[in-house]
Amino acid sequence: MSRPQSPEPALNVQGASSIGPGDEDAADGTQHSHRMLSFSDALLSIIATVMILPVTHTNISPEQEFDKSIQKLLATRIAVYLMTFLIVTVAWAAHTRLFQVVGKIDDTLALLNLACMMTITFLPFTFSLMVTFPDVPLGIFLFCMCVIAIGAVQALIVGYAFHFPHLLNPQIQRSAHRALYKQHILRIILRGPALCFAAAGFSLFFYPASYLLMVTVIFLPYVSKAASWCRGSLVGPREPPAHSLEFFTFDLHGPLSKERVDAFSDGVYAIVATLLILDICEDNVPDPKDVREKFSGSLVAALSESGPRFLAYFGSFATVGLLWFAHHSLFLHVRKATQPMGLLNTLSLAFVGGLPLAYQQTSAFARQPHDELERVRVSCAIIFFASIFQFAIWTTALLQEGETLQPSVRFGGQEHAFMFAKLALYPCASLLAFASTCILTRFSTAIFHLMQIAVPFAFLLLRLLVRLALAILRALPRLALRPAPTPPAPGDPRDDTRSLLHPAPC
Amino acid sequence: MSRPQSPEPALNVQGASSIGPGDEDAADGTQHSHRMLSFSDALLSIIATVMILPVTHTNISPEQEFDKSIQKLLATRIAVYLMTFLIVTVAWAAHTRLFQVVGKIDDTLALLNLACMMTITFLPFTFSLMVTFPDVPLGIFLFCMCVIAIGAVQALIVGYAFHFPHLLNPQIQRSAHRALYKQHILRIILRGPALCFAAAGFSLFFYPASYLLMVTVIFLPYVSKAASWCRGSLVGPREPPAHSLEFFTFDLHGPLSKERVDAFSDGVYAIVATLLILDICEDNVPDPKDVREKFSGSLVAALSESGPRFLAYFGSFATVGLLWFAHHSLFLHVRKATQPMGLLNTLSLAFVGGLPLAYQQTSAFARQPHDELERVRVSCAIIFFASIFQFAIWTTALLQEGETLQPSVRFGGQEHAFMFAKLALYPCASLLAFASTCILTRFSTAIFHLMQIAVPFAFLLLRLLVRLALAILRALPRLALRPAPTPPAPGDPRDDTRSLLHPAPC
Repeated sequence: MSRPQSPEPALNVQGASSIGPGDEDAADGTQHSHRMLSFSDALLSIIATVMILPVTHTNISPEQEFDKSIQKLLATRIAVYLMTFLIVTVAWAAHTRLFQVVGKIDDTLALLNLACMMTITFLPFTFSLMVTFPDVPLGIFLFCMCVIAIGAVQALIVGYAFHFPHLLNPQIQRSAHRALYKQHILRIILRGPALCFAAAGFSLFFYPASYLLMVTVIFLPYVSKAASWCRGSLVGPREPPAHSLEFFTFDLHGPLSKERVDAFSDGVYAIVATLLILDICEDNVPDPKDVREKFSGSLVAALSESGPRFLAYFGSFATVGLLWFAHHSLFLHVRKATQPMGLLNTLSLAFVGGLPLAYQQTSAFARQPHDELERVRVSCAIIFFASIFQFAIWTTALLQEGETLQPSVRFGGQEHAFMFAKLALYPCASLLAFASTCILTRFSTAIFHLMQIAVPFAFLLLRLLVRLALAILRALPRLALRPAPTPPAPGDPRDDTRSLLHPAPC
Repeated sequence: MSRPQSPEPALNVQGASSIGPGDEDAADGTQHSHRMLSFSDALLSIIATVMILPVTHTNISPEQEFDKSIQKLLATRIAVYLMTFLIVTVAWAAHTRLFQVVGKIDDTLALLNLACMMTITFLPFTFSLMVTFPDVPLGIFLFCMCVIAIGAVQALIVGYAFHFPHLLNPQIQRSAHRALYKQHILRIILRGPALCFAAAGFSLFFYPASYLLMVTVIFLPYVSKAASWCRGSLVGPREPPAHSLEFFTFDLHGPLSKERVDAFSDGVYAIVATLLILDICEDNVPDPKDVREKFSGSLVAALSESGPRFLAYFGSFATVGLLWFAHHSLFLHVRKATQPMGLLNTLSLAFVGGLPLAYQQTSAFARQPHDELERVRVSCAIIFFASIFQFAIWTTALLQEGETLQPSVRFGGQEHAFMFAKLALYPCASLLAFASTCILTRFSTAIFHLMQIAVPFAFLLLRLLVRLALAILRALPRLALRPAPTPPAPGDPRDDTRSLLHPAPC
């Protein structure tokens, strides 16, 4: 069977070997946390993505033009969407950190985690309140209460796990500095809730300060990490902290778990693809009365009227699918996702979550040809940002390739060039489409559809094209190889085949 | 680090060792299919679950009573929902089978799989057409066309994988009977589309026959499997097929991949939990105008009016969460999911997917106290069926425990009794609540809320209670142990600790 090895058999062996006569009660009922984390990832990614719905459901009557007032309304809602998406991502990151410390779960922890999830699913409601009543502080207050509740449950999980140390990560379990780890993880988890506690206080008399504190919650971990990373890359690799060598091998500020980044991203892509068809189901099933009166009972005629929307649907699905495909290919090569990569991935996902908005735009203004240009450009911009952040993940990964990439890709070669081509495809195509709409204003829709059709074929032919390009490069004399456009030293593929067999020590 | 081992490192080693001088082109670009399958599972489970939306969005004006006509309308839509859910599950099962044969993927296969997913996401739309226009055959025709397209893409995947055998499961790759396997998997994949081709033909002149053929598509694999399983359990274990021993070690009718059953179930639970909060966000954010006029600007007063709905939300989330928890605990002990277990799991999931309907019922009839009884009973029935099918999975697994369960649970003991108690909790509670509403009609809502609050605490205390019960049993003389209520031989837990160290050969 080709399926990935399930962690259970290994766990059983471990469980069995650790069971001693007096250890029995402590050992029973613990489980591997893998599936609980997948479930949490799925829930969190769905919650983050459905935040786009209040934005897409902005009611715009067909008579209204795409004028300044609607642009402002949309811009505000998009800003709110981005903020909510990022806040859920912060909650997800804290959850990831927490379960890097807690290695195994028992029933109590599983139930506590469910309580945490329940509180998190309540966030979209408080946000709806904030959007609908921007001047009433109740929404912010409820939101802060939710965040504090999440922090309290997570602190409870930490307390429980450190009370029963067999639930901890084996490395921490054996560590002499367990109390230090506890302090460390509690600080990470309670940083956000503490700020929100202040925000809740401010909301009662001066709520703009609350918004400011909430934005701080989002960017604080990234800013502090970015600062240390910049310092690190300017001054040189940072020295291990003096008080303990362990912090270096198990760094809680270090890379996020790749599996969880994958799972969270998959959830976002999957729910975005599904939101598209939900819109189709809701809006494009013709009314039976209409069919009888307008189309003299012919369902085919009624459906063919909304034909362009189906075309738009297939185009959007292809875009979401191929962006997932690029993300999938990219993360196959990634071994660990550092915090800057995590931030770039989050930003990319936030724009992917914006794709239903692009689709909705297409539907809302379908009858107004003079707004065509606007919506084609919005779509191009969303696709461009979603894909350029993916490209940025790859370049960031290359900066620290020893830490972040699989040994097989570290030495350049064909796969390397191929990856660059794959990730550059959508940024180039959307930029090209955007530029063409500026010159050939009249054909903007045609250009956009052409892009949506051409890119999937480009993906199919990409491997062939890159191989051809590399073959030409190889056929040229060695002198011509130096200024090759493919970045770090394409080299002979036979070289990296050999390097596969001798991976660099890491 | 406690996270499950990623399959990549193993793959790299394998890839590296198989790369020979001429093998280079064949080896590059293949990937492990794990993440693509998770993504497909997420998409398929979401598509299956959102089929409930046309049912919950049945418009019922507050003046209408819960009379026969609405009951009939709802019953029809629930039947349609169950059919659509099961059809998507058939598609998912075929997909699972297919990727048990195809072990690795390359870019072309990933893109083909995306095309397959795109066709599948189109199914909800054809179903909406079928529901809205029951007398027009176009919906059925389009549906059949979708199924045929899915079959065609999957056949293409099979053809491609058998053309490049390094993509196949290693077992099949080395097999001398590769052509037989190809025939076998093609038959499994194209069985449904062939029936749908006939259904498409019938839809043009006699569409009731099409519906009949579609129901056949759903139940054919289960009926044939159930028949062979009954025959097997009556006559004794079946003999290996005469023409090849391999079919016995790699049986395509055999157990489904447990990881994919887990992933699909997680997706359903996660999206159901999210649909609940979406309804809250859509319906329970008060209108700014209402707040100004009716509640003299007090948002708190406006929200407190819909307080009971929030209570209902927390109750429903707790139910979904705890059903997931029971499912999670159950599948920790399961090693392989046989086809009857798969069917029971699907049925359980179909009722879990019906929970938003129960919630919606609560909202729709909130102002009519005389319909209270009806909706409490509907909710109890849905919870009962969802949980009793989980219980049935466990009993079915016990029938073939050698094949289906982890070695650690095969010999009874404390965990065994605990599992029974855990799975019996919801069926008992919902049955009790249902029975109480028959006697204490007036307090039906109170009883229901009491159940929703009591069950989570019961879960927390369960381990304590079961341990207490077992301790009492152990304290009794050996004679009293025989007629103990806990089913297969509780035994001394020290026994199964030792059996953990010597797992039975499987």
